[in-house]
Amino acid sequence: MHFQIPRGTQDILPAESNKWQALEQTLRHFCSLYDFKEIRTPIFEHTNVFKRENDSSDMVNKEMYTFQLENSNTSLTLRPEGTAGVVRSFVEHKMYANPDLPVKMYYMGEMARHERPQKGRLRLFHQFGVESLGTKSPLADVEVITLAFSILKALGLEEIKVLINTLGDDESRAAYRNALRDYFAPYLDSLCADCKRRYEQNPLRILDCKIDHDLDCVKNAPKMSDYLNENSKDYFKTVLQTLDRLGIPYQVEDTLVRGLDYYTHTVFEIVSINEEMGSQSTVLAGGRYDGLISYFGGPKEMSGIGWALGMERLIIALEAEGINLNEEDALDCFVMVLDQEAREYAFEVLTEIRAYGYRADMDYQSRSFKAQFKAADRKKAKTAIMIGSSEMESGSVTVKLLDRKEQTTLPADELVSYLDVHLEEEEEHHHHHEEE
Amino acid sequence: MHFQIPRGTQDILPAESNKWQALEQTLRHFCSLYDFKEIRTPIFEHTNVFKRENDSSDMVNKEMYTFQLENSNTSLTLRPEGTAGVVRSFVEHKMYANPDLPVKMYYMGEMARHERPQKGRLRLFHQFGVESLGTKSPLADVEVITLAFSILKALGLEEIKVLINTLGDDESRAAYRNALRDYFAPYLDSLCADCKRRYEQNPLRILDCKIDHDLDCVKNAPKMSDYLNENSKDYFKTVLQTLDRLGIPYQVEDTLVRGLDYYTHTVFEIVSINEEMGSQSTVLAGGRYDGLISYFGGPKEMSGIGWALGMERLIIALEAEGINLNEEDALDCFVMVLDQEAREYAFEVLTEIRAYGYRADMDYQSRSFKAQFKAADRKKAKTAIMIGSSEMESGSVTVKLLDRKEQTTLPADELVSYLDVHLEEEEEHHHHHEEE
Repeated sequence: MHFQIPRGTQDILPAESNKWQALEQTLRHFCSLYDFKEIRTPIFEHTNVFKRENDSSDMVNKEMYTFQLENSNTSLTLRPEGTAGVVRSFVEHKMYANPDLPVKMYYMGEMARHERPQKGRLRLFHQFGVESLGTKSPLADVEVITLAFSILKALGLEEIKVLINTLGDDESRAAYRNALRDYFAPYLDSLCADCKRRYEQNPLRILDCKIDHDLDCVKNAPKMSDYLNENSKDYFKTVLQTLDRLGIPYQVEDTLVRGLDYYTHTVFEIVSINEEMGSQSTVLAGGRYDGLISYFGGPKEMSGIGWALGMERLIIALEAEGINLNEEDALDCFVMVLDQEAREYAFEVLTEIRAYGYRADMDYQSRSFKAQFKAADRKKAKTAIMIGSSEMESGSVTVKLLDRKEQTTLPADELVSYLDVHLEEEEEHHHHHEEE
Repeated sequence: MHFQIPRGTQDILPAESNKWQALEQTLRHFCSLYDFKEIRTPIFEHTNVFKRENDSSDMVNKEMYTFQLENSNTSLTLRPEGTAGVVRSFVEHKMYANPDLPVKMYYMGEMARHERPQKGRLRLFHQFGVESLGTKSPLADVEVITLAFSILKALGLEEIKVLINTLGDDESRAAYRNALRDYFAPYLDSLCADCKRRYEQNPLRILDCKIDHDLDCVKNAPKMSDYLNENSKDYFKTVLQTLDRLGIPYQVEDTLVRGLDYYTHTVFEIVSINEEMGSQSTVLAGGRYDGLISYFGGPKEMSGIGWALGMERLIIALEAEGINLNEEDALDCFVMVLDQEAREYAFEVLTEIRAYGYRADMDYQSRSFKAQFKAADRKKAKTAIMIGSSEMESGSVTVKLLDRKEQTTLPADELVSYLDVHLEEEEEHHHHHEEE
């Protein structure tokens, strides 16, 4: 029986989910500052949302979770990336008619790619991304790069680098593709099978090949920069000048073409230069796309730009720099049951303090006083509330402030005000310590 | 070309996501108070995680998104519900060895059921649920019911009712099943096809049938309560007494059996009694399950209890009571570009105020002053920051407090302190109004 988790997938366990929540909160916070709003699209779409004509990328050609249900002739695919679904939704809901363009959105969620599982590559992983749809302003390019850079800096990443390049407009890219085909023609036999296919479909992607990367013919290939027309040069110049102005450090990387076919003009990556990251150094990547909105039936000429990051890989990059997102996860109160007959009374007290906004728990296993005390300790409780038959009979509770060893018995209906005073004091006490 | 969203699924658009975030924040907050921690399991599992031997439920028999990839003999299924994956993870990660049982977890995410789409029923919908695994204490039953009730009340739902029943322990349920088989034998011909199957597999589920619901033979069937042994009666009595003690109103509903086969002892629902909800009145449902942990290879005798709610349906129930979760979504600043040559300078100012934690945006479309003013208004901006060539030349900005019509020109490097003072004042001003 297969009761294991499917190969290449992993659970996010309760002890780790705190970290994910903290990361998501930071991402959401920055999106809010930049006026990007969340969109949620379904985990599956009709297959041709992802499998587009003339698309040469591996993701689309080999790695999709595509299926057809019995008695149905609809082909569905689990999303391998977030952009296509967002653009499908943008067009379907006619968001292009919004008077305030660009429409700025972010998404986060599971993505599925049927790759060979390896370190840092899962078949189900979490992606966060942003899309800015409906403007060709180069400032929109700078805005999404600045958002990316600010988020990573705010999370504490220091060892990162922005790599940037331009693929130019359609005219420039066509000229460059022709130049690459002419150049690679005599070397075709030395290229890998995928690159032979890419030669026909999109020779730019040969430059991006993980197999042929070190061939001399690839290293010495013509550069995009020599085939840019004036329009493309001006566009890229504005992007770079504005980045300079904002003090965002970058490096122009003329071999950067990115693994998707739909990019035009600006493409970029943010990479970690921490040595532990090895070949998995790309933390975030994106670019401008000019044909995607019209492909889905939206206005011709309408353009978008966005980026995405793999959340698992971002967490690895953070940990490589010793950054721990886990917030302290302490209970306010742990209720200890001293006599089993007082159990329901203790539970009533527990429910009351939760209703007043305190994080609280109790023992459900009828354990010894000592075992309950250890439980309170494991849960980092700030107070222990001890309840036995004498407390039950007198309607009282015994509270112990665990870091100060102070213990008081008081009427149950005074407990919340006692906690209001003493747990706040405790916090001030802590802050005071931290400041010293 | 199918560029529409798949049938029975829907996007959560930017204008609505605010509401979802507010709902999720409330759910997370209460889970934190009750010491439930989040777990995230994959969107798909091996099929037999959901398709268990002897399971008679419709969800498992008819409605699953089950698929096998080309060149693979692994059958995978998109999760139709959350409990099975959580229990699979609990066992796989040996969480049952945790010294502090129960392990209390919550989850939220997309679930897939290939049902006929209809109002209030989607094929991809969002579920939130909690599981308390590893104790047979009836207080754990009360705890999850109290958590559910507190959440719904905190969200503002008034027109709700807790329905509760017990299915007893294995012995009681076996006795009751036998009694039901004896009772229904003469009526078999009058039951629907599904109920004929249920008669063999699990006759309790005949009581739950949507088709045969109104048959006299169903209405007059023997009651579970007449077949409970002492152990089961005591258990249920403790649950009800503790609910009484906490002041949680409930109604014992002896036909409540729930659509899943694995329940034992306590089962419950919270229903909306708002008339707009019609046949979709169940907001939340759950129960105790005794065999599921051992089914996945965990310790025999280990028991769990949990509940789940459909988030789309909860939102419908909230809206039926006129509750709007949408929080006000206002920008702090809208930057208006008065001369195109000042565009990059304006963008620099924008980036600076965002870096100081203000929500801000600007025009990217080179629109007229009037059009930009309207945009600021649509985005509910509190201030307009106007930047033209004279501001650019003198390194200044012109700020207008939009609800007070006050306008000031000041050096750009004093802008943040100006906002610190005036936006805070604004907030106090608002609070003051609200209190009046």
